[in-house]
Parts: sequence; structure tokens; C-alpha cells
Amino acid sequence: MNADAARALDAADRLAPLRARFALPPDTVYLDGNSLGALPKATVERLRTTVAHEWGEGLIRSWNRAGWIELAAAVAGRIGRLVGARAEHVSVGDSTSVNLFKVLSAAAQLVPGGGARHRIVSERDNFPTDLYLAESVAERHGLELVLADGEDGVLAALDERTAIAMLTHVDYRTGRRWRMREATDAIHAAGALAVWDLAHSAGAVPLALEDDGADFAVGCGYKYLNGGPGAPAFLWVHPRHLERIEREGLRQPLSGWLGHAAPFAFESAYRPAAGIGRFACGTWPVLSLAALDEGVRVFDAAEPLGGMAALRAKSVALVDAFVAAVETRCAGHGLALVTPRDAERRGSQASFACPGGVDAFAVMAALIERGTIGDFRAGGRPGEPDLLRFGFAPLYNAFDDAWRAAGTLADVLATEAWRAPRFAARSAVT
Amino acid sequence: MNADAARALDAADRLAPLRARFALPPDTVYLDGNSLGALPKATVERLRTTVAHEWGEGLIRSWNRAGWIELAAAVAGRIGRLVGARAEHVSVGDSTSVNLFKVLSAAAQLVPGGGARHRIVSERDNFPTDLYLAESVAERHGLELVLADGEDGVLAALDERTAIAMLTHVDYRTGRRWRMREATDAIHAAGALAVWDLAHSAGAVPLALEDDGADFAVGCGYKYLNGGPGAPAFLWVHPRHLERIEREGLRQPLSGWLGHAAPFAFESAYRPAAGIGRFACGTWPVLSLAALDEGVRVFDAAEPLGGMAALRAKSVALVDAFVAAVETRCAGHGLALVTPRDAERRGSQASFACPGGVDAFAVMAALIERGTIGDFRAGGRPGEPDLLRFGFAPLYNAFDDAWRAAGTLADVLATEAWRAPRFAARSAVT
Repeated sequence: MNADAARALDAADRLAPLRARFALPPDTVYLDGNSLGALPKATVERLRTTVAHEWGEGLIRSWNRAGWIELAAAVAGRIGRLVGARAEHVSVGDSTSVNLFKVLSAAAQLVPGGGARHRIVSERDNFPTDLYLAESVAERHGLELVLADGEDGVLAALDERTAIAMLTHVDYRTGRRWRMREATDAIHAAGALAVWDLAHSAGAVPLALEDDGADFAVGCGYKYLNGGPGAPAFLWVHPRHLERIEREGLRQPLSGWLGHAAPFAFESAYRPAAGIGRFACGTWPVLSLAALDEGVRVFDAAEPLGGMAALRAKSVALVDAFVAAVETRCAGHGLALVTPRDAERRGSQASFACPGGVDAFAVMAALIERGTIGDFRAGGRPGEPDLLRFGFAPLYNAFDDAWRAAGTLADVLATEAWRAPRFAARSAVT
Repeated sequence: MNADAARALDAADRLAPLRARFALPPDTVYLDGNSLGALPKATVERLRTTVAHEWGEGLIRSWNRAGWIELAAAVAGRIGRLVGARAEHVSVGDSTSVNLFKVLSAAAQLVPGGGARHRIVSERDNFPTDLYLAESVAERHGLELVLADGEDGVLAALDERTAIAMLTHVDYRTGRRWRMREATDAIHAAGALAVWDLAHSAGAVPLALEDDGADFAVGCGYKYLNGGPGAPAFLWVHPRHLERIEREGLRQPLSGWLGHAAPFAFESAYRPAAGIGRFACGTWPVLSLAALDEGVRVFDAAEPLGGMAALRAKSVALVDAFVAAVETRCAGHGLALVTPRDAERRGSQASFACPGGVDAFAVMAALIERGTIGDFRAGGRPGEPDLLRFGFAPLYNAFDDAWRAAGTLADVLATEAWRAPRFAARSAVT
């Protein structure tokens, strides 16, 4: 690839017009949509309307008149379409962490065979909040959290002691992606339940939760779904479990009033709502939820252009182009791709390990100063190299982004610009 | 009181200029700030800036540059000043329901005397979500939820079996207010812990959580704190418990990554943050949190005018004026005040029971159609009368509001306007 080739790819990209729906700052190459998705332009007006008109003028009446009370279910339907789930099996609200607590707590009550299975199996390199919540649920249910290394380690750990396997579909550091159906089959073959975290998947790779037979899932609203900082998250429960939960009167522990069968009857005893309804808890943050609604609505505009399948094809091409450009333009600087080259085994990012002596944090800081925004991620364990992470959001990233970012990276490495003392201070938000 | 007297009271009210900080619609008398606080004008610009500038242009960098990562603690400090708590003992984020789950779960681990105490005592008429969460925590900790009727019932139920008393400071229906210090003393005398819900108190009545010796508290951001629909909530833990929690390594179950000692170190095992930090869970909804920040900042403007003490004095006068006006202008229509006349025993609202044959829901619907917005609340138990609830927010309500609302109510009752069929359909949001 070269600059002309990148431009030609963009010119031929049927999805390219979607970029105009985002308020990307000029002279910025934004490759961190897997940390915080870019701002859809429509969200500015939506929030203005929600704040000034619905809240300011409608006041309390807007719960009904402006449909706030139905908003979570409406967003659930839109997210469901992106992850291969039906609206009535998706619940939107609270954070990913809180939702994971809900589904793990529900899963712990549904473990086949009861007490003989006492392990939650996960990956040592899973996103930390998932492990922290699993620790908590394990303790509460007399289970044990067992951490395995990598896919092979997890698969080898599945046995008659396994109650739940909790896996993140796309690894936040490396971008490595599980084969959801095959892994779920293996988990089921071992007699356990599969809980999936879709934080780096939803909106970036096609998903078929129900068809793949997954048991539970959670996902994040502020990455590829463009819902804004700290946007509400979502959870999904397979209908076979919803039926059993209802039949046996099981509850998730966060039994708040919006998960009650009749929230406005103000009954003193909890009666869980039917189906997925019982996974709601307290009042949802309407402003943040309105922003998430706009974020997810952008995908509606991608539907006539091929939807998630077309977005995925573009994502693969973008990452391939970026990897090729980096490996050509940064040759000799010792960067090593840690993301699988096989597109079937990765999400929508490319992560490179920096060689010894090159401070990945400082490299990323220098890139950001030059307007190319990716993310730094520390190595998983002591001795592992730190990573430069670049996420590609097919709704708004262009082949020109990939080309320019590779060039800036080459420049930062060649000039050793990253050695400037101002790039040494550390902080990061995923 | 008459119209001139109301205008004279407004003219003499030093707090009256604060009303101009709110975007109240014209021709509306808004007496439902205890369901959804009015919109501070500054919030419109704050959200525009947060969305268009911080998110749109700053993107992921705004977690540091725009201070999103410190925003929850900043808001906690502001709320702390309103409730008699230090910033370092307050945590902001999640919903009231989720926060109640956190503090009840923590309290259950701190019960003096251990297993001998096995009861959570609360009021049957407590706000339902509190009871639902208490049910859940009770079940998880082998406790029993015992519901008592009214203050006398609760006080009589306190004994050597009581582990926790969970009380709502101001009753959402009647506006009846507990004497926090006396009740806490009684709970402590029985050897139990006091958990307070401040949903209808924070921002409306002066509070002294730490001085009164309360153990735990939660509160709502979208009522008198003007944080917007579904705003993040808060929780508070007395420092004596925070010290013990830290010393003994206790955890609340929602052990998310932002409650970790080093969230950005991405460690695989949970190490709780020091002090109140461990009560945080997942990433907070920045847009909704920014709105809450503006809502609470309005109280800063009240500081030079006398702060919470002056606001409380005005609230008392407003409710007194409203009750007097209703009892004069609606005489003969059978309304009965259920809110204590003694200001020491009430929050910032007046609730009236409708007599048999008068449909309170329809009366409120007719009032709302005429621009006087209060709230309908069904009677607590079968046979109890339904209520018309009017909340007074001293930051923006005026004596003229009280006078006009009483007049509209008198008109609706005298003309029987509420009998129109369009007022019969029911729905409500607290």
C-alpha cells in the first residue's frame, strides 16, 4: 500500500460516507474507538433536545411523553440486532461490571448438576473487572475462580468441576478472538455454562449469540457502539435460561424496582418482571442512555450498505492494510504484531509489542501528540512486552487513517521522538 | 395568605433570585422536584461542552484532560457538604438501588455480635426498591427482612435480633421525616446498624450524617439535587466502618475495576482501593454525571445566601403557606393533610388524601393539564386513600407557586373537571 492506494481504497469503499456522521476532529487519526467510540454528530442535537426540551420543558411528564420509560427496551432491540439476539432477551442499563455481576449470579444458580461443579474458569489475561466480579460471585456462591493461560489453557481446564466458563470474546490487549460457537460447544460438552463478554466485539464483528448457543453475555456501550463515555452497558440471556429462571422463580440479586413485575404498583414485596425484565435494577441514566441510542442508531444507516457483514469486511481490510503499512514503513524498529494475522481469529484491532529499550507508553504519547490516537496497554505479566494498540472502527475509520498512522509511527520511531521527557508520565483508561 | 401576600413573601425572599438559574417552562407551577428536579440552565451548556468539546474533540484524552476520571470524586465532595459528610466518605455513581445493595452488603458483614442478629428491620411503607434490595441482601446473608408499620412499629421491633435497621429519612408518600439522631441512637442502643435512604432529603433538609452517628446512607441524584433523569446516585459510609472495612479486608460485592487499588495496573486479582474508593464499581456515565455536577453546583450559589439552613427555612415557609392556602381555598372538598404539620417531622412536601369518591389520579391529571405539576401516589395499603403529592424545592419554588397551585386545585375540585374521561388512564414515575 501507499498513499494513493489508500485513497483508492477509500474511494471504492461503499461505507465511506458513514464517516461524515461522526464529529472527528480535523488532523486527527482516531484509532481508539475500542476505548471510547467517536461522537456521532446526531448525538449533539439529541442530547440538546433531551436536556433542554424533554427534561427542561417536559419535566417529569417526559417519562411517558418522551418515552424515557421505554428507552432502555428500544436500545436493547437495536443492540440485539447487532449481536444476533432478540430484543426480548437483551437488557440495557448499568455498567458492564454490574451486568456481569447479574449474569454470573444468575448463571451460578443454573449450573447443571448442582454442587459437584464448583469452578468458574476464565483467562488470566481477561479484562480485570471481569475477574474481580467473578471473584466476588465465586465467593458468594461457594465457587472457585480458576484462571488459565490462553485458549489452550482454558480448553484444557474445562472438566466435570467446571460450573461456568467466563470468556471475553475479543482480548482487549491482543485482539485475539475466540471462535464463539466452537468454544461454547466445548464448554457445553464439559457440562458448563458459557458467559461471554462482548466489550470489544459488539459493533465490530458479527455475532450470533442465540444461534451459537451461548448462555449469557454482557457488552459495553461506549466502545464500538459509540454511546459516549461510561455509556450504559447491556446483557443478554439465552431464552432457554429465561424460561427456566421464570419457571423456577430464580432472581438476580440486584432486584431493583424497574425489574419488578409492576414497578408503579409500589408493592412491598419483590415480584420479578417476566423474562428479561427482571434483569433491570434502578432508574436508568436517561441522558447517557439517549446518547447510547444515537450511537447504536448509526448502525441503522449501515444496514442498506450491507450492515455488520459489510462493516466486518471493511474492518478486516483496514487492519490488514494497517499491519502491512506498519511492517513496511516501520521495518527495522523491532515491532512485533501480537494480533492474529488470521482475520477469523481477531477482532478489529492491531496490537504491536515494542522491543526492549523502546518505551511503548512514550511511543504512544508521542503519537497522540502528533494527532494519531491509539492506546498503550501494559504487558499482561512481568516480562511480557508492552503493547501499542490500534482499534479500527469500520463506521468511521478510513484506509487513509491506516496509512497515515503507520507513517506517523515510523516517524516517531525513526526520530526517537518518544525519548522526550514529557512522554514519560503514565495514565490510561481502557 | 392571598395573592398579594404571596408576592410580598417572594419579594422579601433573599433566595428568590436562585429561581432564575432554572429553565422552568412558562405558565407552569412545578411541584414535582422530588420526582425529577428542574433543569439548571447551566446544565444545557455543560452538556453541550461535555458532548461536543470533551467527547467529540478530546475523545479518549478527556478522561485525563477534562478530568472525567476525577469527576465522581468532585461531585462526591459537593454532595458531602449538603449531607454533613466529608468528601472522602462519599461515593458517587450507579443507581440508588445498586448503591443500597453495596451498603447493605457491607453492613451485613459488620453486624455486631455476628450470627445472633439475623433481622433487617424496615418500614412496610418504605420505597419499594429499598425493600426489594433488602430482600435480596437478606437472602444472601441468611438474614430475615422484617417490616414494621410506622415509626412506633419500627422502634418497637428493634431488639437483640436486629442486625440492621434500614430507614428512609423522608417518606416518599407522606413526607413524614424521621429524627435521624434519635432514631440512630435507638438503633444503636438495640445493638444494630442504621442505614438511611436520603432520596427525599438530600438538598431539601439539612443533614448531619457524621455528627448524627449514622452508619451508612444512600441518596438520589435526580430529585432535589437536580441531576437530571436517572442521574447517578451516591452512598456514604461512616469513617469508623471504613476503617474496619479496610483493617479486616472486607469487600462490597460489586468489586469493579474503578474500585480497585490500581485500576490502570490491570492486575488479575482484586485489591480494593483505600477507604471509600472500594465502593466504586464500573465506569461511570460521564454525561449523566456532568449533569449531576451542575445540579449540585447550584447549591454553591445558595451558600452566600445562607446555604442549606436558609433553604430549609424557605422550604418550611413554602409548605406552610401551601397547606394554609389549600385548606382555605379547597375547604369543603374533603382533602386531608397526611404530612405532619410540625416542620420538624416532615421533609419538603405536602401530601393530601382525597376523600372517597374523588379519584386522586384524575385530580392530579387535571392539575397537570392546567400546568400545575405534582404527583399522584396510591395509598400504601388496600383501603388507604390515594394521595396528591406536592414537592417544594426551595432553590426554585416561589410562594406564588404555592398560591397558584392551591387555586388550581380548588378549581379542579369545585368544577369536578377531574371527572373528564381523559384523566382516567394511569401511569406514574417516582
